[in-house]
Order: sequence, then C-alpha cells, then structure tokens
Amino acid sequence: MKKVQVELAHRSYDILIGTGILERVPEFLAERGARRRLFLVSNTHVFRLYGEALLQRLLSAGFEATQILIPDGEKHKNLQTVENIYTYLIAQGADRCSSLVALGGGVTGDIGGFVAATFHRGIPYVQIPTTLLAQVDSSVGGKTGVNHSLGKNLIGAFYQPNLVCVDLDTLASLPPRDFQSGLYEVVKYGLIVDREFFDYFESNLEAIKQRVPEVMERVISRCCELKAEVTSADEREKDLRRILNFGHTFGHALEAAAKYENLLHGEAVGYGMIAATLLSREKGNIDQATADRIIDCIYRIGVLPRIDHFSHEAALQAMSRDKKRQGDCIHFVLLKGIGETEIRSDIHEETLIRIWDRITSER
Amino acid sequence: MKKVQVELAHRSYDILIGTGILERVPEFLAERGARRRLFLVSNTHVFRLYGEALLQRLLSAGFEATQILIPDGEKHKNLQTVENIYTYLIAQGADRCSSLVALGGGVTGDIGGFVAATFHRGIPYVQIPTTLLAQVDSSVGGKTGVNHSLGKNLIGAFYQPNLVCVDLDTLASLPPRDFQSGLYEVVKYGLIVDREFFDYFESNLEAIKQRVPEVMERVISRCCELKAEVTSADEREKDLRRILNFGHTFGHALEAAAKYENLLHGEAVGYGMIAATLLSREKGNIDQATADRIIDCIYRIGVLPRIDHFSHEAALQAMSRDKKRQGDCIHFVLLKGIGETEIRSDIHEETLIRIWDRITSER
Repeated sequence: MKKVQVELAHRSYDILIGTGILERVPEFLAERGARRRLFLVSNTHVFRLYGEALLQRLLSAGFEATQILIPDGEKHKNLQTVENIYTYLIAQGADRCSSLVALGGGVTGDIGGFVAATFHRGIPYVQIPTTLLAQVDSSVGGKTGVNHSLGKNLIGAFYQPNLVCVDLDTLASLPPRDFQSGLYEVVKYGLIVDREFFDYFESNLEAIKQRVPEVMERVISRCCELKAEVTSADEREKDLRRILNFGHTFGHALEAAAKYENLLHGEAVGYGMIAATLLSREKGNIDQATADRIIDCIYRIGVLPRIDHFSHEAALQAMSRDKKRQGDCIHFVLLKGIGETEIRSDIHEETLIRIWDRITSER
Repeated sequence: MKKVQVELAHRSYDILIGTGILERVPEFLAERGARRRLFLVSNTHVFRLYGEALLQRLLSAGFEATQILIPDGEKHKNLQTVENIYTYLIAQGADRCSSLVALGGGVTGDIGGFVAATFHRGIPYVQIPTTLLAQVDSSVGGKTGVNHSLGKNLIGAFYQPNLVCVDLDTLASLPPRDFQSGLYEVVKYGLIVDREFFDYFESNLEAIKQRVPEVMERVISRCCELKAEVTSADEREKDLRRILNFGHTFGHALEAAAKYENLLHGEAVGYGMIAATLLSREKGNIDQATADRIIDCIYRIGVLPRIDHFSHEAALQAMSRDKKRQGDCIHFVLLKGIGETEIRSDIHEETLIRIWDRITSER
C-alpha cells in the first residue's frame, strides 16, 4: 500500500492506494477518529459490486452505516439528486456529527463531495473512487459539484475530503473503454510535469493496459502525488493549476461537438492532447521527434472513436464560451518539452481551425 | 466611518461601518480591485429603497451591474430561490470572473452568500446588510445557507465575503420591532465577552433606541469586532464559537414552539438570554444583583411579545432535536459574570421545565 499526503494546512489528508484497501476501510476510518454515523453514497451498480460488502464491514466494525443509492450517469449529476440526498439524510437523522462516504466514479464523488460540502455547512467525507479516471483525477484536488441544465459543473464548491481510499481491485470490474479513457489523464501528468513518469508510462504501457497491480499502484500513486502537489500549491485554480487543463481546451470543444455522446471525457482529452502537441510543434516549442513520440504514445493507449464527422463550428462555439469565461482570451496549455509547459493566450482562430481539421481527419 | 478587519489569513476582509457608505460602495469596490461584472441580489422592497440608487452609482462608476430580485421572507430562503438565481446568472452570462453583491437583511445575505459560495465553486461577494440583526450578526462570520423543508439552515457553506458595507442610514427605514429585535443580539455581545460594552449599552440605551448615528456606529462596530474576533479564532464553529449561542438554546425552542410565527428571532433570543441568566443564577454562577441587572436591561430594550400560551412540550422537543444534533447532550452557554461564559452540559430536564415556566409566565 502507498500513502500520498495532500498538504493543505489543517485540512491535509491521506490518499491510500493499494490492493485489499476496501477490506481495511473500517480500520482506516477508526485510526482517523471518524464519526460513528456514516452515510455511504453510491449507485446501484457499484453498490452491488463493492458497497454491500463494505457496508457489512462497517457495521461489523461498530459503525452506524446506511447506504444512499443514486442513479448512475452524468445526466443525474444535478441539484435534484443533491436535494434528494439532503432529504434522505435529514429523514434518517443525519446531523453535523455524521460523515459521508462516496463510493463510485467521478459522478458519485462530485455529487457526494458537494453534499458533504453543503450539508450543515460541511461534514467530513471520504472518497472511495472506483474508476481509474476518478482515482487519478476527480478524487484529488477538492473540486466538488453538479451540472446545471445550462452548463456542466457550474454549481459546486472547493471542499477537501478527510481521506481517499483507492482500491486497485476495483479496476478489475472497469469496462475496457473506461479504463482506457482514464489512461489519457494518466499520461497527461507525465507530459505536463514529470518526464521520468512519461518514460515509465511509455516503457510499461503493455503492463499498464493489462492492469498489473504493482504497476498500477506505482502509476496511480504518482498521478495522485503530482495532482496533490499542484493542487496544494494552488487550491483554488489560479495559474499553476491551469496546467492540469492540458488537452482540455480542445477536449471540451470535442465533447461539446459530440454533445457528450459516444465520446468519453478521457478520449476527448486524448484527442485534445494530440492537438496541443501539434500546436506546441507549430509554435516551435518542441521538435518533430518529440511531437511524434508523444502522439505515438497517445495512439498506443488504444483506439480512439472516430470524430471525422464533427464540424468545427460547434467546437469553435464551445471555445468561444471558454474564451468569454476566461475574460476574452483562451489560455492554451502548450508543451515546452516533455514534463514542461507554457501557457499561451495568443493562438489565432485560423490556427485552431487548422489543428482541428488535422486531428479530426487524421484517423 | 469605522473599519473592522476580519483576520482570516488570505481570506481576510474589511467591514466598513458609517453613514453615507452606500454612496461610496463603487469607490470601496474599486479600491479593492473588484471585478467589473456585478450582480446585485436584493428583494423588491430593499431594492426600491436603496438598490436602484446603488445600481445607478455602480453603472456610473463603470461597473457592469445587473439586479437579481428575490422574494422577501424566510419562507423563500430555500434551494428553489438559489436555483432561480443560478439560472438567472447563467442566462445573463455570469462566470467565474463575476462578483455578487447581497443587499438586504439576513435572508438576502444568507442566500446571496450561498450562491456566491457555490456558483463556479465560489465567486467573490460583498455583503451590504440593511437590518440591525444582519449588520451585527449574520453578515459577519461567513455562515451562508438556506433552509430545507425539514429544517432551518440545514444546507449551507462557510464562505467569507470580500467586503461588508454597513450603512447606518439604512437603519432609518427599519420598522421599530425589527430594530428592537436586533438589539437583543447586540446586548448579547456585552454579556458573553465584553463587560465594558455591556456598561456602555446599559448607560446609552435611550440614545441607542433613538438610533443616534454616532452611538450606533460605536455599537455596531464593537459588535462586528467582537464577532470577528470570535469567528477568526474559530471559523468553523468548534468550542469557542459556541458562546455566540448564548440565549439561543431556549431561543430556538421558543421559535419552534411559536412555529416561527409572531416571534422574531431576536425576541426569542431576548427571552432565551433571560432563561440563561436565570439558569446561571440557579447554578450559583452569578449573584442575584447581577442577574437582576441583566434581566432588567433586557426588558428595558422594549416590550417582548406574550408567550404565556406556549406549552413546554414543543420546546422540549426542539431541545431534544438540538440534543441529538450535538451528540446526546445540550451545551448550555451560561454566564459566570457579565462578559464571561461557561459551557455546561449537565442541565436536567426538570430544571429546563422550571426555567421555561418562569420565563413564559413572568410577563
């Protein structure tokens, strides 16, 4: 088991990563003096796989634990689900002294975290992410929230968990496409801040794709360390944290063009990183060999869905919304080499369209 | 004008208190580098009195300001109103770079603060409280939130404003009963932490009741200083902050017994402080002369509504809910003298009933 400490003064917490972690959750909670009254938020699918056993273990260990099941999927990540959870919590007598445990993927973690942030002005909570994407990305950094019918992630709070438990065994049940989707966020960390990690990823890609536990423990804990470093230094997303958006400007545009259908977030980021690499090459930031090496590695992760039927209008519209959001310029995270970034806001629309056409037609 | 600084590391902010403050809001915002895009949340009544003029001044000063009017009253302090504000904000193009200004009483401040805390995971906001209660209590300390249909203030967040502007001129429009209600929270500060302030309050009660600006400036700024000290030392309501609940245990029980009708929060706290004083006397914490002096001062603030028709059942029920919330014991804030408190959790039910009967039948 590896332990990553997230340093945030009096709100510091541990991320525990390893196999057999789920069985030891009661022990980890007890060590940290957790409250006896726990509410386990999960969806029916994950609850059946891991939640029922976890609940039994918590009860056996003397916790007063109750499950709250929410519907699965991004389309339920909204205030209605949040309000349903509040109502259930209150009806079950939850109070300031209760804690929340979020067991599931990114959607469950985002919703559970937001409920924890806003119930009685904040109660303690534990994240148990069960997808690769949630393990390396959304469970670290304290971003919680839900979508509004007019836009994604518009409602939320920065709120840190008291503990994050990553059980590598949960990866076994993850569908191949979801696992692959998480790997794009994994390789991102190497590209933006850790050349050595990129080398490791590239050399061990086959073992990673086979989900070899020792390799995945190293990979996930390194991602958590890197995200923890960046977010500790910049909790509320000023400049530094922006580098985590590498590949996300094009990625978001692609997701918008796809209307969030048939394209997973990680896949969109995969394409987005290719675009950002091409852009970095065009600006002379990296040489052709480096660009080729990066793009080759991204393609080796797996087959990306076809996007050659996307037109650039919807994408440009999404980018212009991003632009407005950022105060009239888009900040592009470019590479200056593997493990080094540069933020540029001087990218012209023609350049964007050219790059867009290259990535959408290339395969 | 007085300035009270609330010290909370990088989230420190100023409370400005004086006459003519509303006219200088654009100047104060500009000094603090506020964002250009502002959303002014208020209710129709307060907006007509002060908001329209403020909006014009903001526009003249080059701010891009838009009003968002919400219905008045505690019964609209809920998630529905919050969601309506989100929708309006998004439709008007509000983003992470927008700021919110909450102009009104406690309800407006609590809702506005919660929206600011949760829109795009937190945007800057300014509190302009226009009632005495909001000026001395709810606008300081960072508590924001709304009610759930199953209980008051169950949904919320700790979130600090960037600036609080208290314009004493707004007190002129406050109905006498609301002003009086605020005075109970004012005298509370003297009783729990500042004997000298209690002396001042007692000696200047007539000038205070006449709302003499120089006196009110001193009174309100002292209350803000004291609340700022307590909440800076204990932002998230652990032990220290509890003393602010002096008079509130009985007060909440009275409000519940009254079903929040015909009894204002401050009035309930007024009765609650009398009860807590009687309890402090019973426990031998204070002598009879001190108890008499305190109770006399509270009664001199003004006529309290009759409560002799309240039965103690509903009150005890409310207290037992409080009890459950606090982990099986009620923490009573008692006085050990004027300006000094003691937290006790060993008060028996018979004692509570006896005190309840005394305060409800006394007048």
